[in-house]
Amino acid sequence: MDGASRPESVTSHDVARAAGVSQSTVSRVLRNDRRVAASTRERVLSAASALHYVPSEVGRSLVTRSTRTIAIVVTDLGNAFYPHLIAPLHDEASVQNYRTVLLTETVEPLGGDGDLGSAEAEARAEEISPLLDRLLNRSTDGVVLTTSRLDGTLPRVLARRSMPFVFLTRFVEGVAADSAVVDNSLGASLATGEAVRLGHVRIGAIFGPPDTSTGRDRERGVRAAVTAAGLELPDAVVRHGNFTFEAGHQAMVELMAQRPRPTVVLCSNDIVAIGAFNATAALGLSVPGDVSLVGFDDLPMAAWEVFGLTTVHQPMEAMARAAVELLIERIEGRVDSDAARQMVFEPRLVVRRSLAPPATGA
Amino acid sequence: MDGASRPESVTSHDVARAAGVSQSTVSRVLRNDRRVAASTRERVLSAASALHYVPSEVGRSLVTRSTRTIAIVVTDLGNAFYPHLIAPLHDEASVQNYRTVLLTETVEPLGGDGDLGSAEAEARAEEISPLLDRLLNRSTDGVVLTTSRLDGTLPRVLARRSMPFVFLTRFVEGVAADSAVVDNSLGASLATGEAVRLGHVRIGAIFGPPDTSTGRDRERGVRAAVTAAGLELPDAVVRHGNFTFEAGHQAMVELMAQRPRPTVVLCSNDIVAIGAFNATAALGLSVPGDVSLVGFDDLPMAAWEVFGLTTVHQPMEAMARAAVELLIERIEGRVDSDAARQMVFEPRLVVRRSLAPPATGA
Repeated sequence: MDGASRPESVTSHDVARAAGVSQSTVSRVLRNDRRVAASTRERVLSAASALHYVPSEVGRSLVTRSTRTIAIVVTDLGNAFYPHLIAPLHDEASVQNYRTVLLTETVEPLGGDGDLGSAEAEARAEEISPLLDRLLNRSTDGVVLTTSRLDGTLPRVLARRSMPFVFLTRFVEGVAADSAVVDNSLGASLATGEAVRLGHVRIGAIFGPPDTSTGRDRERGVRAAVTAAGLELPDAVVRHGNFTFEAGHQAMVELMAQRPRPTVVLCSNDIVAIGAFNATAALGLSVPGDVSLVGFDDLPMAAWEVFGLTTVHQPMEAMARAAVELLIERIEGRVDSDAARQMVFEPRLVVRRSLAPPATGA
Repeated sequence: MDGASRPESVTSHDVARAAGVSQSTVSRVLRNDRRVAASTRERVLSAASALHYVPSEVGRSLVTRSTRTIAIVVTDLGNAFYPHLIAPLHDEASVQNYRTVLLTETVEPLGGDGDLGSAEAEARAEEISPLLDRLLNRSTDGVVLTTSRLDGTLPRVLARRSMPFVFLTRFVEGVAADSAVVDNSLGASLATGEAVRLGHVRIGAIFGPPDTSTGRDRERGVRAAVTAAGLELPDAVVRHGNFTFEAGHQAMVELMAQRPRPTVVLCSNDIVAIGAFNATAALGLSVPGDVSLVGFDDLPMAAWEVFGLTTVHQPMEAMARAAVELLIERIEGRVDSDAARQMVFEPRLVVRRSLAPPATGA
């Protein structure tokens, strides 16, 4: 168990000797160089197999300058949303013979200082960020960004350093990069339209952070649908907060203290809606008897019997797989144009118990 | 955005030239070799800083034979339990200047074939497992195992190859390795004792997989406490299943069909208890009015108002940090003895609404 005394294993030189070829031929075979004859290739592979040779990735990456590693950057691992992205990202990368490394922005959040994309902000970000150091130290071939803020400097720095990356679920304005997202404004308008159709007039909302594309676009969708229905969304029944259980819980307590109370509350995502749901339980109110709730994402949790949450489905697995494909095409130079490719997935309203017509006495 | 055209950055040779030293001196400074004079060290570091030099980890690891990378092996990323371990593992590793790589056992589960630790099973595991290949290809300094099964071959293979590793939450019999675990049998007996104290006589249980140390030890604790109270645990009101929402849901539906019905069901963990909770909602039963429920883990979700789950707290963050410390001490050769060190953390009963005295009519 002592790392210092780890025994030396078989090297590529041993394989070369056994196969009767040079060590550089072994290297060529291992990096799938097509200039090696099929018969030589077979001799090397069977020698490697017979010797139980495990190639050193460190050595291999010095030769190929590739690490076959994709970094996934997330901010909040405790959020129930991310595991549902990480698993398919990992699976799709494995299929394409890449490994994934999970990096979290822990100490210093990049950007968010209002100093939008200035060269100075970028330089500062490069100095302070251990995350950035890890992304740029050549141990990574490309990056999946899942939690970008609209004013984040990280994507701008990556672009300037020509590090391949892709936006998943959220994107950043003014940065030309591939992205896989759902049509957030459309999804939010579908949910709002259904509440209106059921007769709701006093609509409240718990929106996400305005400095995220998802927060902003879902808010746009709700507001457009409310206006289109000839209704209003008074500031008194609108809150903004993070995509967390706690933010939804607290905002709901505040909204339920308003008079008149909203008869439906549209939430920025499922976790926020479930926080709001638990707040109603704490207040002795019932869903949808006293107030209807709507989420966004369609996490497995939304379907749990105690919640029965009406929500907007986004195909997270397909989006994650698409993001990996877009990224690997860039890493391997299989894309002709530098133009950003945006894959927009269709949202779908999923009707469950939590959205019902307003109570007549409400 | 094209990886093929990524520009070359500043090299250690540039730093050496600027500092007026040899390239190997730069390498020595970067790997914190103490034989470099303080003044030389300072000159190199300020040259590196002035040139915005980002060391290549690939090059560095060839020199030091260390990758400063710890692999975390998990089976089920969708399980709400793991994010609560992964975040503190990642944080503690960062503090100690290690990165973490997340590896999941996807295609072929290692072991579980009943062929306990035979050399043949190990050889087969080494052949088939892309996971094992990744762990042993020298891109990792050590491994945190979070989901070991009692008959798993992976820890045995790692031990044989002298790869440092640590068990977190679960361990494997007969493999001498460091571990950080909670006292599972004690925790389960505390919960059972409280149910008995409240007057429950007809006790049911949804146990975890018997081939995991957590599943087995929690079952031992429940059975011992039931016997100590002079009660019985008939097979008709006992189920075994995985640590999942679905397993708890299905088992609870079966247990609630028994006559007489148990008045309390002790669950293998919180996710299983929450699956069981949702099953009662689907059946039109109430918790604790019709049946009491008890979990294990004390996930944040257990405290949600809709559940109010009585459960056994295990200090997951402290356990995760301890596991990283144990592992890094092994990696860096800072432990005198090869003897396995087991850190056993204390469980604590957390009383909420879901456990109450049995209804008089039940």
